[in-house]
Amino acid sequence: MSFPLLHALAGDAAIAAFFAEGREIEAMLAFEAALAGAEAEAGIVPAEAAATIETACRGFRPPLDALRAGMAKDGVVGPSFVALLRQAVGEPHGKWLHFGATSQDVVDTGLILRLKPLAAELDARLAGTMEALERLKAAQGATALMAQTRMQRALPFTAADKIDTWLRPLERDRARLAEIAPRLLVVQFGGPVGTRSGLDGKGDLVAERLATRLGLGCAPAWHTARDGIVEFGNWLSLASGTLGKIGADVGLMAQNEVAAVRIAGGGSSSAMPHKSNPVAAEVLIALARFNAGLAGTLQQALVHENERSGAAWTLEWLVLPQMAITTGAALGHARQLIEALRFLPDAQIAQPAAR
Amino acid sequence: MSFPLLHALAGDAAIAAFFAEGREIEAMLAFEAALAGAEAEAGIVPAEAAATIETACRGFRPPLDALRAGMAKDGVVGPSFVALLRQAVGEPHGKWLHFGATSQDVVDTGLILRLKPLAAELDARLAGTMEALERLKAAQGATALMAQTRMQRALPFTAADKIDTWLRPLERDRARLAEIAPRLLVVQFGGPVGTRSGLDGKGDLVAERLATRLGLGCAPAWHTARDGIVEFGNWLSLASGTLGKIGADVGLMAQNEVAAVRIAGGGSSSAMPHKSNPVAAEVLIALARFNAGLAGTLQQALVHENERSGAAWTLEWLVLPQMAITTGAALGHARQLIEALRFLPDAQIAQPAAR
Amino acid sequence: MSFPLLHALAGDAAIAAFFAEGREIEAMLAFEAALAGAEAEAGIVPAEAAATIETACRGFRPPLDALRAGMAKDGVVGPSFVALLRQAVGEPHGKWLHFGATSQDVVDTGLILRLKPLAAELDARLAGTMEALERLKAAQGATALMAQTRMQRALPFTAADKIDTWLRPLERDRARLAEIAPRLLVVQFGGPVGTRSGLDGKGDLVAERLATRLGLGCAPAWHTARDGIVEFGNWLSLASGTLGKIGADVGLMAQNEVAAVRIAGGGSSSAMPHKSNPVAAEVLIALARFNAGLAGTLQQALVHENERSGAAWTLEWLVLPQMAITTGAALGHARQLIEALRFLPDAQIAQPAAR
Amino acid sequence: MSFPLLHALAGDAAIAAFFAEGREIEAMLAFEAALAGAEAEAGIVPAEAAATIETACRGFRPPLDALRAGMAKDGVVGPSFVALLRQAVGEPHGKWLHFGATSQDVVDTGLILRLKPLAAELDARLAGTMEALERLKAAQGATALMAQTRMQRALPFTAADKIDTWLRPLERDRARLAEIAPRLLVVQFGGPVGTRSGLDGKGDLVAERLATRLGLGCAPAWHTARDGIVEFGNWLSLASGTLGKIGADVGLMAQNEVAAVRIAGGGSSSAMPHKSNPVAAEVLIALARFNAGLAGTLQQALVHENERSGAAWTLEWLVLPQMAITTGAALGHARQLIEALRFLPDAQIAQPAAR
Repeated sequence: MSFPLLHALAGDAAIAAFFAEGREIEAMLAFEAALAGAEAEAGIVPAEAAATIETACRGFRPPLDALRAGMAKDGVVGPSFVALLRQAVGEPHGKWLHFGATSQDVVDTGLILRLKPLAAELDARLAGTMEALERLKAAQGATALMAQTRMQRALPFTAADKIDTWLRPLERDRARLAEIAPRLLVVQFGGPVGTRSGLDGKGDLVAERLATRLGLGCAPAWHTARDGIVEFGNWLSLASGTLGKIGADVGLMAQNEVAAVRIAGGGSSSAMPHKSNPVAAEVLIALARFNAGLAGTLQQALVHENERSGAAWTLEWLVLPQMAITTGAALGHARQLIEALRFLPDAQIAQPAAR
Repeated sequence: MSFPLLHALAGDAAIAAFFAEGREIEAMLAFEAALAGAEAEAGIVPAEAAATIETACRGFRPPLDALRAGMAKDGVVGPSFVALLRQAVGEPHGKWLHFGATSQDVVDTGLILRLKPLAAELDARLAGTMEALERLKAAQGATALMAQTRMQRALPFTAADKIDTWLRPLERDRARLAEIAPRLLVVQFGGPVGTRSGLDGKGDLVAERLATRLGLGCAPAWHTARDGIVEFGNWLSLASGTLGKIGADVGLMAQNEVAAVRIAGGGSSSAMPHKSNPVAAEVLIALARFNAGLAGTLQQALVHENERSGAAWTLEWLVLPQMAITTGAALGHARQLIEALRFLPDAQIAQPAAR
Repeated sequence: MSFPLLHALAGDAAIAAFFAEGREIEAMLAFEAALAGAEAEAGIVPAEAAATIETACRGFRPPLDALRAGMAKDGVVGPSFVALLRQAVGEPHGKWLHFGATSQDVVDTGLILRLKPLAAELDARLAGTMEALERLKAAQGATALMAQTRMQRALPFTAADKIDTWLRPLERDRARLAEIAPRLLVVQFGGPVGTRSGLDGKGDLVAERLATRLGLGCAPAWHTARDGIVEFGNWLSLASGTLGKIGADVGLMAQNEVAAVRIAGGGSSSAMPHKSNPVAAEVLIALARFNAGLAGTLQQALVHENERSGAAWTLEWLVLPQMAITTGAALGHARQLIEALRFLPDAQIAQPAAR
Repeated sequence: MSFPLLHALAGDAAIAAFFAEGREIEAMLAFEAALAGAEAEAGIVPAEAAATIETACRGFRPPLDALRAGMAKDGVVGPSFVALLRQAVGEPHGKWLHFGATSQDVVDTGLILRLKPLAAELDARLAGTMEALERLKAAQGATALMAQTRMQRALPFTAADKIDTWLRPLERDRARLAEIAPRLLVVQFGGPVGTRSGLDGKGDLVAERLATRLGLGCAPAWHTARDGIVEFGNWLSLASGTLGKIGADVGLMAQNEVAAVRIAGGGSSSAMPHKSNPVAAEVLIALARFNAGLAGTLQQALVHENERSGAAWTLEWLVLPQMAITTGAALGHARQLIEALRFLPDAQIAQPAAR
């Protein structure tokens, strides 16, 4: 998706920003600083070392080329990131950096730190989409439409009836996100093999303090159990699919022969100036099908072998960010589409399915 | 999956039974009887008509050939089922059968009536799998194993540590199912176009009474919003994936060179009698990948056009039953595999990753 | 898919028959008989032993329960099948049965022996579908239609123009199958680890004779390289998708407001007798989306670890048969739909997209 | 995939370059120039107009912001691109630009013009990978290894036997690409609705001349039949899967306990300096699973409604480029991995599966 033209149609700069290198580095720095602080609280790391580490994290900007080279060599950015940051911390405190932690702790927690505001942003957009639908319903809900079942005219109903079928699953999607969040937005801290070993039995205490400092929930290490990540991906696909259904309905209603809606400002054609295309509606369908497929792919990452699977983890990285970005894009298109909708009363409502 | 040999490996007779014709017919009869009763309570259907319909539903066994022919012609069993049942009810009460309802009401509610005990069965098996893991942990948890990260020996830990990584996601899966159930196990009642029209404004009342009689929750019509069905499919895939991860771990630990577990009664080879194959572990992986893919396909059904999509609905029928059956099969294999596991202490635990 | 009602809509008895236990057993018997004969020709197996084996294979019907039990235990039917057949052959020749072969040889070759007539059947149906389209074009090709781009009326064209867009990919699909066949329809013979060892260096000779006797091509062992199987699955999905596009077009053209086609004998509704639903068109879309998803799942089986992956192989068994069956079903629906189509001239062709 | 860190692991700059804005614009300019020239040859466009258009195309660099805005509004870059280029051509010849063509002609042909060198590049890398394998076989093929079936030690064979199982499917993949190319690398020229209308019956002549000028094959319009694009996507997934199998084998063989291969320069760990991780092998698995899933998603785009589906077309754009890029990345990793492989003789080859 690194294709600006396509991005203009299917991208979302605000959501993509959460996956930019800078944001990932900030999140990893926040983890290392909070870890040192938590371990100082727990009496594992000397207070002075923790203070030095926190200071070093504040200003630190690692050379991106070195990180990319490390990523290519190690398959994960953790080792090179920690090595560079350790140099910045310097002696004698460098050895206390990342103490008792592993790459997965900093990378997974660094992801969760960004998924928290990302999920809040998507939830806010869902709420906004629902408000736009409520406004549409208030303004045009009385319009008489012909319900269509199995691609055939069925019986009359109203625009309000139609809009309700769009609103209800969005409501449920918001409820789902509220249920998922406590499972998803938790710190990952397990150490080399997930047992929080090497911390004088204070591993759980450190995890709690770490979580508190980062504003995340605390939970046992989930480095090998990726159900939280996959559940969130499934949610992104559910939300995209709900919006894709709106797109499908609008595309069908906007057909010239049906003319149940008009869309203000449709797309143009290079060959047929008379046309006004339901572009946003079509994009919503494309994004729904795209995320449906990606959700199935992400679930392949549940088969995560032993204590760390580079294969399964890399697959997550390839899939989850674009699912979030395209869900964001879908919410943007949906909002715009809903606000551009004008329902038109059905011409033949008098004689239902006369044809 | 109508292949007995494969069924012996990847099937589950108890779960498959929920999708047999007989069970579907029973569920549809329960719907029509409850609907007539509910509509009598609401003063829409004459009490005598309701009583006659309830009686007719009790003994009724429609000719399967006629139902299959109807399915092939109409794309859904509803119309032929209702027509045959109406004949059985006879005049003058036949006209009150299925009153104000549509095919989707009887077919979708008929599905939910079977998903309720099916979900309970899977939940009970999950609980049983967790108990088996707890027993395994109690009996062999102290065994010293070598944790493996990125396919390499990492650091020592214990069988209990490993088992915990299997238990935790299963716990979360049970919690998820408890959250999903109230959204999933609800009646579908909407009438021809989902508005509960044609019932003197008593549509919602009928829906409530209908739900009560069927032991389901009440909710607005969801005939076009398939998020509940898809969410359940995602859950089936999550559960299968969690079990697939156990299979992957066991398969790797059971390698001759690793020998971290022995599996009692492995599979044999037609060419190499000396071998003992980790068949159940491999099947768990296969079922996880199968359901991961199907989950992605099921999500395509969220793009459900207008007031009824024959295309999207048929896609659900093709996918959901086999997801449930293979999840059941996976739970069976997992239980058996866990009970056959014998952990072996790591031979070189003294010198971690000396190689 | 073991659900008779659904089968009536999405099944295909003729194609499903290729995957029935009986057919699989016949194919495996043909393999063992041909192998013994080939090895006798090569001077490896005594002629008398080969003759005894060929005779035993002729009448043999193994007890299905034993095969199913073997499947469940071994994860593949080979070992129990060979053991039962060996008993039937009896001493002293039993030891020459399956000589130098492994389960994968008999199971995979047994599959290919059935895929050969199956592919021929699908190809014949494709040809029949194309003939039906040619007849439709000859009879109604001149009908004036309005082309629709991006769900909007574009410019006039004819039914013949539309039919051509359906015909061309079917032609290419037939050409593809002809290219795929020589790669797919080859014997699998590798012995325990795929090297054709233990045959006094006559392994390749045996493979050639075996292939000749079975009417298959000869190729190196492909037990671990599943690209041929996956390529065929991709082809099934391509064919289904091409038919799904026809279904999508017909469903849109058959909308009451568009009325560009009428379909003789559409499906009925339990609530709205006035309706005639484009059932076959919708089923074609469902089957296309179903096979698209399954094709993606089948490709996961390319990651086939080492010399035999029970996990990847089982995944193939779960996916490929239903892809073949639903492709067969799609061809049946497409043929019937095409023959039921009646194009209707566009009412407003005079003023293109006047709306 | 617009994430530089991930790109360092799973990206491929050379392949990604084919999808950069600049390359797309160049390709579209080549189309418009060749079209004008072809139409001049056919006596449709005045020679002077064609010359002016060809000149304008040479230097033209459209403002990217305007193209992106057009993309967002129209759902395709064609209309804004043609409008901007027409301004550059100016009067009186501007009206001859893009004459008889539609957005899909310039965009699809623009894609094919880039897929041609892209496919050649991938084919060359495949050839290089095969040469690397041949060299590996020549140098180390005699090493005695233990074949592994169903995750268990089976019987001895050699590194050469193993390498052959990697080589053969790559050979077939090259043969497949040679078969696919003539179907894929063809011009798309159909005009507004695919009929090459509005060119005084010279549409096919123009298509031939256009194809010749662009170095592509000529074929009927395929704007609605996307089987060529999907077939190429399937091929990308087949190639990725073949490489993923190599990754799976190497990952298993590189386990410390198995030690059948050593990989020079493995990845490091932030917590366990003693480790050397098979990063490239794991990435190959991840990319194979990623492309397998995307291939299933791309096939959903076969259901392309009527004469142009914005939804299905957009889905192609979202999927195909990343499939090509990750296949390129997989070829890079595979080459590097193969050249870093050192096979180690099996320690217990004397007593097969003694354990």
